[in-house]
Order: sequence, then C-alpha cells, then structure tokens
Amino acid sequence: MVYNYKKYTGEKTVTKGRRRKTGGKESKNMIKVGIIGATGYAGQELVRLLLQHPKAEIVWYGSKSYVGQKYCEVFRNMFELVDAACLDDNMEELAERVDVIFTATPQGLCASLVSGEILSKAKVIDLSADFRIKDVAVYEKWYGIAHAKPQLIDGAVYGLCELNREQIKPARLLANPGCYPTCSILSVYPLVKEGLIDPDTIIIDAKSGTSGAGRSAKTANLFCEVNENIKAYGVAGHRHTPEIEEQLGYAAGRPLCISFTPHLVPMNRGILVTAYASLKRGAAEEELRAAYEKYYGGEKFVRVLENGVCPETRWVEGSNYVDVNFKLDERTNRVVMMGAMDNLVKGAAGQAVQNMNLMFGLDESTGLELVPVFP
Amino acid sequence: MVYNYKKYTGEKTVTKGRRRKTGGKESKNMIKVGIIGATGYAGQELVRLLLQHPKAEIVWYGSKSYVGQKYCEVFRNMFELVDAACLDDNMEELAERVDVIFTATPQGLCASLVSGEILSKAKVIDLSADFRIKDVAVYEKWYGIAHAKPQLIDGAVYGLCELNREQIKPARLLANPGCYPTCSILSVYPLVKEGLIDPDTIIIDAKSGTSGAGRSAKTANLFCEVNENIKAYGVAGHRHTPEIEEQLGYAAGRPLCISFTPHLVPMNRGILVTAYASLKRGAAEEELRAAYEKYYGGEKFVRVLENGVCPETRWVEGSNYVDVNFKLDERTNRVVMMGAMDNLVKGAAGQAVQNMNLMFGLDESTGLELVPVFP
Amino acid sequence: MVYNYKKYTGEKTVTKGRRRKTGGKESKNMIKVGIIGATGYAGQELVRLLLQHPKAEIVWYGSKSYVGQKYCEVFRNMFELVDAACLDDNMEELAERVDVIFTATPQGLCASLVSGEILSKAKVIDLSADFRIKDVAVYEKWYGIAHAKPQLIDGAVYGLCELNREQIKPARLLANPGCYPTCSILSVYPLVKEGLIDPDTIIIDAKSGTSGAGRSAKTANLFCEVNENIKAYGVAGHRHTPEIEEQLGYAAGRPLCISFTPHLVPMNRGILVTAYASLKRGAAEEELRAAYEKYYGGEKFVRVLENGVCPETRWVEGSNYVDVNFKLDERTNRVVMMGAMDNLVKGAAGQAVQNMNLMFGLDESTGLELVPVFP
Amino acid sequence: MVYNYKKYTGEKTVTKGRRRKTGGKESKNMIKVGIIGATGYAGQELVRLLLQHPKAEIVWYGSKSYVGQKYCEVFRNMFELVDAACLDDNMEELAERVDVIFTATPQGLCASLVSGEILSKAKVIDLSADFRIKDVAVYEKWYGIAHAKPQLIDGAVYGLCELNREQIKPARLLANPGCYPTCSILSVYPLVKEGLIDPDTIIIDAKSGTSGAGRSAKTANLFCEVNENIKAYGVAGHRHTPEIEEQLGYAAGRPLCISFTPHLVPMNRGILVTAYASLKRGAAEEELRAAYEKYYGGEKFVRVLENGVCPETRWVEGSNYVDVNFKLDERTNRVVMMGAMDNLVKGAAGQAVQNMNLMFGLDESTGLELVPVFP
Repeated sequence: MVYNYKKYTGEKTVTKGRRRKTGGKESKNMIKVGIIGATGYAGQELVRLLLQHPKAEIVWYGSKSYVGQKYCEVFRNMFELVDAACLDDNMEELAERVDVIFTATPQGLCASLVSGEILSKAKVIDLSADFRIKDVAVYEKWYGIAHAKPQLIDGAVYGLCELNREQIKPARLLANPGCYPTCSILSVYPLVKEGLIDPDTIIIDAKSGTSGAGRSAKTANLFCEVNENIKAYGVAGHRHTPEIEEQLGYAAGRPLCISFTPHLVPMNRGILVTAYASLKRGAAEEELRAAYEKYYGGEKFVRVLENGVCPETRWVEGSNYVDVNFKLDERTNRVVMMGAMDNLVKGAAGQAVQNMNLMFGLDESTGLELVPVFP
Repeated sequence: MVYNYKKYTGEKTVTKGRRRKTGGKESKNMIKVGIIGATGYAGQELVRLLLQHPKAEIVWYGSKSYVGQKYCEVFRNMFELVDAACLDDNMEELAERVDVIFTATPQGLCASLVSGEILSKAKVIDLSADFRIKDVAVYEKWYGIAHAKPQLIDGAVYGLCELNREQIKPARLLANPGCYPTCSILSVYPLVKEGLIDPDTIIIDAKSGTSGAGRSAKTANLFCEVNENIKAYGVAGHRHTPEIEEQLGYAAGRPLCISFTPHLVPMNRGILVTAYASLKRGAAEEELRAAYEKYYGGEKFVRVLENGVCPETRWVEGSNYVDVNFKLDERTNRVVMMGAMDNLVKGAAGQAVQNMNLMFGLDESTGLELVPVFP
Repeated sequence: MVYNYKKYTGEKTVTKGRRRKTGGKESKNMIKVGIIGATGYAGQELVRLLLQHPKAEIVWYGSKSYVGQKYCEVFRNMFELVDAACLDDNMEELAERVDVIFTATPQGLCASLVSGEILSKAKVIDLSADFRIKDVAVYEKWYGIAHAKPQLIDGAVYGLCELNREQIKPARLLANPGCYPTCSILSVYPLVKEGLIDPDTIIIDAKSGTSGAGRSAKTANLFCEVNENIKAYGVAGHRHTPEIEEQLGYAAGRPLCISFTPHLVPMNRGILVTAYASLKRGAAEEELRAAYEKYYGGEKFVRVLENGVCPETRWVEGSNYVDVNFKLDERTNRVVMMGAMDNLVKGAAGQAVQNMNLMFGLDESTGLELVPVFP
Repeated sequence: MVYNYKKYTGEKTVTKGRRRKTGGKESKNMIKVGIIGATGYAGQELVRLLLQHPKAEIVWYGSKSYVGQKYCEVFRNMFELVDAACLDDNMEELAERVDVIFTATPQGLCASLVSGEILSKAKVIDLSADFRIKDVAVYEKWYGIAHAKPQLIDGAVYGLCELNREQIKPARLLANPGCYPTCSILSVYPLVKEGLIDPDTIIIDAKSGTSGAGRSAKTANLFCEVNENIKAYGVAGHRHTPEIEEQLGYAAGRPLCISFTPHLVPMNRGILVTAYASLKRGAAEEELRAAYEKYYGGEKFVRVLENGVCPETRWVEGSNYVDVNFKLDERTNRVVMMGAMDNLVKGAAGQAVQNMNLMFGLDESTGLELVPVFP
C-alpha cells in the first residue's frame, strides 16, 4: 500500500492532518478516478478498495444528496483518510479531469449522462444495469424506462472478468455485472457451457444481505423490519433475471428462460446462490468437477471448494472471492450448484476494480489481495 | 389464562412465592402433562405454551443433562413461573402419573422407551422423527439407526392437524411432524392434491432460524459462526426429505422423489419455504388460488395471503400461524409456492399442543390464541 | 382469552373471515379502547396486548400516515386478526365513542388534543412525555416545545404502577412512563428510598434495542447502519434524564442531578440498565437485598433475581416483567444496580395496559400474563 | 502486499495451487513468525493480518485442538491462501525456527512455556495476560493461578504502543494489552495524565462483541443465547480491572481503584467504552480537547473525533483504529469519555503486529493500513 506508506511517516507530529492532504500518491503514474454515486454502499466500498489500491487515486467524490458535505461526515470510517468534500454528478467536467469514471447510481442515470465524446476522454465503468443487456427492448421492458443511449449498447462490454477477460481489456464503456448475476452465472456456467445440464430446468434461489437494498431511507429496510426475518421478493419478476438469462444463454448457445427468486437475509453483506438443474444424462461426480476445474482451475478469485464443502458467505466477506461447489443428487437426477460471495466486493466494487485493472493493463488482482474477514 | 388468574391474586404480599407453588390450576379437570426433553429449545417452548394453556398442567420436567437442577435456572425466563426441578427420563413412572407424555428428544429415544403398556396408560406425543415414517426401512436408511419398536409404527398417527384431523383425535401414539416438513407440506399440498402441478418437478428450498439446530454446545452454532452468514447444509441428504416425500406422495396418489435443501439463517426463529414446480397445463391464477382456499379457507392456523404478498417469518413469530401464498410464473410455466412459520411453534411445540387439544377433545386452538410478536 | 374463544369455533368453514368480523367479545361489559398512533411500534404492541385482553376491545385504530388503509396491511402479523382500517387522530369524536384513549404519539400531540371536556368523557393514557414532568419549565427546556395544556399537568398521574398504584386508580389523565425511566427508576429506587446510596453519585448507563427508535424511515435506523454496531447517543442531554431525576428525587426527598447515557444495541427489543452509586456507609449485601425485597417482594412484574444472577433482556422479552438485581463492590464502596425489561411491553404498551387495568378496577395483571418468549 | 504480488502472477494457469505453495515471499529479509494458538479468533485474525504484511511470513500454525489438520479446514476463509497444517505448541522447537513467537492462548500457558533461553533465541509477544501485571500477587489473586515465571515479569514490556513506544522497541518479552484495557485506557488516559479528572471517581462501562468470548463451544455463546440479548457479566470482578487500574495508576502517579463493568453485545466485533469521571475543577471544553490533542494529535491509530460526534464500533471494524471522544456535562460536573475499536484488531492481533513492527524496527503501521470495513 504505497500511498499509505508515503502518507503516514509514523513520526510523532501534530501536523498529521495537513501531511495527509498534501502527501499521498505521486499523481503521475497514478490512474485518476472519479466516482459518481460515491455515497451509496457500493460507492463507499469502491472508495475503501481504491484507497488501498497502489495505482489509483480518487479525485472526485460525486453525490446527489451530499454535495458540499465532507465525505468523511457521510461515512465516518473515512475520518482522517479522506478530506475531500462531495461534488455533484457532472460527467462532462469529470471526463476532463479523470482517466476513469465509475457510476454507482440508479438505473438510467449513466445512460443519460454518458456520450461518445465523454468516452473519447475517459473510460466509464457503470455499476448500474444500463449497459448490461444487449437487447434494448428487454432492458426497457424489465426496467420500465426508455434507454437514453441505445446506440452505445453495442460498444459496451459485459465485465464478468472470468468469462470476458480479453474483451474487457480494450473496453471504453464497461457494464459491471449485477450482484445476483455475478454469483448466479459463475455458479452455473461450467455445467451449462459443457452441456452437462438441461438449461431449461435451471432454477436459481438466491439469498442476499441487506446492503444490496441500498442506503436510502425506507421503512422496509429499517433494522427492526429486516432483523429476525427472511422473505422472498420480486418473485418471478426481478430485474436481474434477463441479465442472467442472456449470459447463460451465450453459454448454452441459445436463448434461455430460467426461474430466479431473490431473498432478503438479516446480515449486512453476502450473497448465497443455490441453483438446481436436471442432468442431461447420468453424469459422474468427477465429470462435473472436471467442468468446474476446466473453467476455474486457474482463476484466482473463483475458489472451487473440496467435495462435500458448501459455500458460506462468512468465508468470503470483505474479499473478492467467489466460492463455488456443487452436489450431485442421484435420487432426483439433479445437481445442486452453490456459490457465495460478498455482494459489495465481487458483486459490485471489487469486480469494478478488477475490470479497471484489466482496462489499464495492470495485474488483475492489484489492490484486491484482500483476505476474507472473519468473524 | 385461568391458571394465572388463580395463581396471582394481585394483592400486595410478600408470600408471592409460596402462593404460587400452592395456588394454580385445580388438578381435577386438568390434563396432567409430562415432558421428556424439557430443556431443549422445543421443550422449553412447550413449557411456555402449556403454562398459558387453561386446561393443562405440567407435572414432570424431564431432562437428561439437568436432572436435579431447578428448571428456572436452565431457562431464567421461567423465574417465579416454574418452581419445579428437572427429573430424569423415566417413561415408566411418568405413564403412571400423567395423561400425556411429550418427547422432545433426539431420534431413537422415544422408540426405545415407549411400549404398548405405556400407551395403555398415557398418550404419547413424540416430537422426534421415530414414528413419522411408515416404512421402517426408509427410516433406518435415512436416520442410520435401527428402529426399536417397528411394531408400533402402524398405530402411530402423523400429526399434521390440517390434513389428518380426524385420525388424530383417537390417536394414542402421535408422531408430531418435523419443522421443515410442516412448512413444506402445507405450502405445496393444495396444488399437488388438486393435480395442478407435476409432482416430479417439485424443488423445495427452505431457510431456517438457528433454534432449529438445537441447544447443544457446538462450535458451528456459536454466535460468531452463525451471525452474518448463510449456508446450505445436508444438501441432497437431509433427513426431513423422506417425510416430505411420503406425505406429498399420499396427496399425489403415488410415491414421489423431490429435491429438498435446507439453509441456516442468522435469526432465532422462523422457517421460510420457497418451493418450485412446473404446472401440468397452463393454469390460471384463480384456479391455483381456489385450490388453496379449498383446503385452507376454513383453517384458522393457515393464512392464505392476498395476491402478491409474500410470506415473511416476522409476521408469524411466536404464534401458531403458517402464512402461505404462491406466484404464477407464466414465462417459465412454473409456480413458486411459499410458506412462513415459527419453527418452534407450528413447527414443534405449538403443533404438539394443537394435537393434544384434538386428542383430548378440546377446541383445537385452546391455549394457542397467540398474536404474532413483532418486531 | 375469551374473545378468541368466541371468535374461532374451530369448525371447518370457509366463512371464517365474516365470522371473525361479526363474532368477538360482547360489547357490553367490555372496555372500549381508542388508540391514537396505532401504527408505530408501541401502538402496534398495544394492539397485540389488547387483542389478547379479555375485558377490552379496540374500536379505533388511529394513524397519521395510514388513514384509510387496512391495519393488517401495515402490520401483516394482524392479518385475519384485525379487519379494521386506520382512522384519523380525531380525539373529539373518539371521546364520544370510547372509554379510554391511548396516545402513542410524538411529544406535544397529546397535549394539543386533550382537554378538560375530553377528560370528562373518556380517560386518557398518554404514552408520550407530555404529562410526565410536573415542572412545565423543565419540560419545555428539555423538549424544546411550548406545553399546550400546562393547566392539566397537575391533575395527571405518573403511571409507574409499582410506585404510584393508589394514585393511578382514580386517574383520568395518566402519564405513562418512558422506557428508559421505567427500567432506570425501578432498578435504583429501593436503595435511594432507603437512603443506602448517595443519590448525588448515581450514574445510569442504559442500553436499548432499536424498536425504541421508532418506525419512521431514517437512514440512521437502517439495518446496515444499526447491525454490527453499538453507540452512545444523546450523551448528557437525553430527554428522559429529567423524568428519572424527578421520580428518584421524590424517593430521595430532594431534587437530584444524575448522569444518564443511552446506547443503541443491534437487537429489536429490550432495555438493560447498569447503574452505579456510592454507598452512604459500608452496607452489607443482606441490607441491600432487604431493600429490594421490601419494595418488590410482593410485586408480580418486578422479579428480584437471586444473588449473583445478572438481568438479561432475553429473559423478559415479550413479557411485562422487569428483572432487577445488584452487586456490591466493596473495593470501590459502590453498588452496581441492574435492570432488564422489554421496552415495548413494560416500557410502553404493557405498562399502559397495567395502568388501564388499575384505572378500570380490574386485576392489575389482566391480559398481561405473558410468559417471556425465548429464544 | 508484496507476498501476494509474488504469489499470484495472474497469468492463466491451472497450476495455481502448486505455484502458491512454492512461490511466496523471499524468506531472506522476512520476519519468520510462529503462532501458538492460531485456531482461536485472535489467532486467526493474526493470520489474516500477517498474510497481508509485506515483511513477515508465518512458518508455524500452532494449535492445541487441531494438530495435523489443515489450517484452511478450520478457517475456510483461508482456502487457497494457507496450505499449512496445524502443528503443536512446541515453543522450544519454535524458538529455533522463528524470529518472533505470538502466543494467543489461555492464561498461564505462555508463562509455563517461555524461558530466558527461549527469549535469547526469539522474541515473544504474549496476547494472554501472563505478563501484563507487574505485581505477581495481584495477578494470582485475580486470575486464580500461580504464576510459573514471576522472574520474567520485570523484563516484560506492556505493549500499549501509544503510551510505551520507546520501551517496546528493545523488548524481548512483550505483554500485549487486553481488549478492554486497550480501549478503556486510551479513552481515559489524557484526562488522568493531565490531572483534569478525579481518578477515584472513574467508572468504566464497556460493551463488547461476542468474538471476545472466544471460539470454544459453550452453550452460553450459542447464537440463540447471544442474539437479541444484552447482559453485564463479571460485575465488580472482571480480570481486566487490575490491568486498567495499574496503567491508569501510572498516569495518575498513584494506585487507583476503579469500577469496571463489561457487557456482551450481539455483534461479532467491536468494543465500546463509556467512561465517567468527575472534573477536579470546572474545566472548559477546550481544555479537555487540548489534552486529547496533546497525546493523540500525532497518533495515527487514535482518532480524536470532532466535537459532538460519538464513537461507534461500525466505523473502526476490521481496522487498527481507536476512535475516542468526550462530552462535558456541566450539570453533573462530570465528563463522559468514549472509545470504540475492533477488539480483534487494535484489541488483540492488530496491536500485536504494531508491537512486532516496533520491535523489529519497521514503520509502526506496516501491514496495518486497513480502511475500516462498512457496512
């Protein structure tokens, strides 16, 4: 963590504060980053990761609700780490000043702000859904809004690094995958791609921590409403469904229609996916495992667990890992596919940084060498 | 709550303690109850419910680990409510002294203790799995133990009140259903019974609070291991699977093989079931709803929620209700069936009391008029 | 629970819904209750308790935010238990129709609505702070609002049943104590009253579950903000301070000035008080215990725990009990006084019902015979 | 994170596993670390921090319960990060092989194993209480065991870095402070040292997350026992009391006797201290703040919050920071001093690494540049 090294010399001094502002990473050689939507949970996680990134520096903390307020007053964990105040969501000006713009904003905003001219000046990594779905009609049907820049969809790259690494490197407009899709797709992909399961039988039952619901003040997300409770929501209609279907459809070689049900769990972070599918034919344990090894054996951030070990969100919390495994059920001729990850890291900010690293020619894991925090 | 009424006159006096011991329900006209395994979570819940039951009195608090210790020292919520000390698991003696014996014990114990002679003296309500499964071979395969009293299985009645009410009334040996099976069966039953779904496509994804894991000291159940975590366990091998298959098989009219996956959720109480199945033919919303209304319209403890409302465990906590609903997914031609209940009440102690009421000719809801506790 | 008994006959029938509306308690002989502020956490708990009360029936569910909406759509635990829709906060009309009005509303509202004429028609039990403090200047200083009905303060009775039982019985305007004051005062009272501690050294460190923060949508109360966190708030300035000082001052025989610090704990319900004071002179364990026994030995809802046992909120949850105990620290010549209760029951709705019982000549514990719910 | 950098090249390859075992930090120039008690929560946190430390490598994972088992099977967050198996607690052999030994073990074990000869070969950082208290009689009275190496106590250094930095650097036997003492002492120290408060009036009310209770399987620490509950424990008798008294006594210049009460909070990590004391004389806000600035203005890991902001555990979780602040209460002439930290980091493993850095001449914050994880 070069920046901190420079920032804090460790000698006793009361000018700590000022030293921090002036010190820090050499601006040359550093990727200049601007964040639009830095005051949501995903935006704040992006700040946490980038502060620990040796090759990037944040120069713009964008926010809709907190313009003018010091960032560390919104998130007090950043006290004495971030001195900047929040700025507005001015993508025009941002494009002049930064190398890459992250948008961690509600659906529609990135599409309304981005343009070819902006993309000619800065790369854009969009954490919203605006550029994830290639078929604009599907996007507009599921999201219920008109797409402001359909002409930019084709040029956008879907940033699931383990599947699209080579296409991501040259991308200028990067669609960062949704949290549920990242965990769902990675859990199921190898068996679909290898044609071992019948893709028409895929059912995905997903469970998410509450940070996925965002930081806006809603009665339904109050502590006493979420704590000691579990519920399904968006049954048969959640917006992440077409995103999962499109990506798994590429693996299957044809359009798919799957069942996807998200649930809200009383915990801060983590997504667990339990997916079900029928085997095309009797397949042996070894054959299924070989498929996972084939695609993930060399992947750092996807850990294929040992036989019989179920993924648990506690083992990946705070890190960029996705733990996956499966269980063959010969009685029903089905396979149960499971995946666990941190929805704010690999499901949002971590994957966004992983994409940034690829887009700027850095080692993919730069700044993401985070050991999961337990308990 | 007649007993309390008598117990506490309310006048100021310091002989409160003694008054409590001597006062209380008239023993005549009261059902005398003995509990074997009163110091587990289900056993303690049984005590909570029976203390508030106007027609029953507990005369035996059985325990394996706490013999001789005051019950209220094991569960301090019972301080000044229960003065008795824990006794051993002597079913012989118990049968002489009580009208009904509840066994809230590990698999195998009830079968090893019960006998025709005991059943001639007292009714037995077994909260373990010993007498739930009619096929002893299936029991022995899934539970990995030999059944000590196979000859008593035929005479035992499966105590899912809403389905077996008439058979329960005359029963002397009652097999109280498991927590997962109660919620799973009630969520799916109407559509299977009416032949609206293909029973070979049933997949049940269940989520349970941690009280279901019991009160024994295991590292895996420590606060820091369970909190901020969700995991699947017993995948494709959980012991409640054959119980669900048997009961739904009766509804389908033939043996079934289903997928069942339980999950551990960081909350104390509650089970949520999310079940999936393919429709036999295109069925309308109304047709599916009519099936639920047909079987549950007159049932007090099963609440069929309004269209679009998903069951949540918080709305049934502390009560004997099961909230059920379904969502038709025309895209996939599947229906998602959901149920929520309190695993310690309707999933264990509450249903056991409901069965006791039926077996002793009382109103089925006596002592179970509990408004769910929220938050 | 007479009402439920009548309400649900248990026979199979699909007219359950209608039967519920028409059935229920005989209106004659029943206390007619109106609730202003029925859609907050305290208001909802009041509904839960009154639904289980054999001598009261709710005829008015008042709400500011949900007028016209069915009550069971706001709190779905009430589905099939309450069919009524929410009405507005019209105290004039209410006074014509009910025997008692509960106000579970923000500070100032009850004072603005109540009047001598209303009190001549109905009794009022105010769960807000408007009539708790006798010195209107103190009220206005700490609450920062002008008191709309100072002339009614003298006639109001402070409803801490264990201390003011006789004054409560004839009251027409009842000031229901705050949650922190109830637990704080009951924990400390005996030693102050008996002059065993120096009241100028009293320090009260209190911890509360999050339901005490109310149900309005605020970012600070979102699940992810409260979960996995503990903080102090309102340090040296919390509004419950003068209420505690006034009541303990009566016990001490002179005005007191104490330190009170509340904390927010990641749990739904419960308040724990840890209070410190210096002994006036060396006092023996027995002498201190005798003081607690003197005042609480005959009290049903205050349980003085055995020597060495610390109160815990889990043992009183869902009930009207307050568990208290103390620890003598000879090293420091201080005594640590502790109390635990459910902030929504004894700290709000339960105590309000206890007061109602006293005001209507019922047994004080009617409808409050609730066994604590654990886990 | 040099080691990771070397460990994972990032190129696609399926030999990931083997590369990891062989690759890793150059052993020359690296501090070789052995951990006795690596399978407790503090031990595991030490592993997490050292894996991310650029100048240290763990060569011995000691454990009493898991000898021979792979470390990543005990803590699955370490899967693919740690390949080593657990070894026994052989300090003799360890001393031959490592530069520093950490003991994260129950009281008494370190004292029984350590010796002058071992200290001549390796430095020892003891996370237990064995060498924290200078007066062996006090240690034996509060811990109830005989001290096995009283002759080594004098040479041991109390490792509260912010207070003892210079003495720590040359230390060979380092007594790492307890979690409660670290947060308590740092919260109160400046006002005691500056003589602004009367040290005889200090009362410390502390609240801790459950990881502080350790990982051994006890019923009292099961999820359902801790969740939705708060309690005090060890009232007037907790073992951390004399440690706090000794250190604050040095600041006061004379022996002190204080009140200390710990509480168990339903969260994984974090300690919050709320301390009370009477001002010696009327002191102004500015005067108190100046005292905190004097001692902590240049300290990186102690953050003095802005006026009116209360410390919260969520803002320091996963980091080595301690957030402190105070509130002057002119009504009572008392000051409320508050501190929040992560009990496993600054309260245990983080401070141990901070001490290691000082003892080996590294920048004090090496490997500890961790941004707090929220939510």
